[in-house]
Amino acid sequence: MSDQLSRAFAALADPTRRDLVARLAIGDATVGELAAPYDVSVQAVSKHLQVLERAGLVSKGRDAQRRPVHLEAEALGELTSWIEKYQRRAEERFQRLEALLTEISSTTRTTTQPNPREGRTT
Amino acid sequence: MSDQLSRAFAALADPTRRDLVARLAIGDATVGELAAPYDVSVQAVSKHLQVLERAGLVSKGRDAQRRPVHLEAEALGELTSWIEKYQRRAEERFQRLEALLTEISSTTRTTTQPNPREGRTT
Repeated sequence: MSDQLSRAFAALADPTRRDLVARLAIGDATVGELAAPYDVSVQAVSKHLQVLERAGLVSKGRDAQRRPVHLEAEALGELTSWIEKYQRRAEERFQRLEALLTEISSTTRTTTQPNPREGRTT
Repeated sequence: MSDQLSRAFAALADPTRRDLVARLAIGDATVGELAAPYDVSVQAVSKHLQVLERAGLVSKGRDAQRRPVHLEAEALGELTSWIEKYQRRAEERFQRLEALLTEISSTTRTTTQPNPREGRTT
């Protein structure tokens, strides 16, 4: 599981592979279709797809002729779950800190209010 | 921007670095504090922190003595935003496909209803 997470994050650490994910989000596509807009060979795209496939982010269809590549949205969900868990925890801590600072500053304001003997001279 | 995304995904593609992120989500910590639970040197943890820092995922505090490491929750948010965009797109497409299949199957059921001339013989 941990290794699968590492593989998935590593798979997304490349602009071309992220482009392929973005393209596959629109719909399944064959390797040839995926390679068409790029200035790279079908072989190069195939290699990138292999990395995505080993990471569980895409799968190949069973249609023997076309073997369309399919994006595994659930696997993407596991990545966001991992990140969001810690993101949320850090944000909650920040909010508590902020609330504490607001409390301290309002307490300080109360205790440093102008001395009534010095003020209201009119 | 694209390179920063690549660096951030690459930074999370390592179990020790993900552990450090998880630890820092609880609170800021010095390099020494972060290294303590691991069977690795402070130097090794420092190197991992450098990777996280270059990726914009953590920052070092200004306290010259302690230089506590701070998790950048916003940077994590940028990663989830990227993934969720395509995850949502793929899921919506899947839902539309499912709705279409339901529609087709209900249409098929309607058109294949028993012929009234054949049925109701009683």
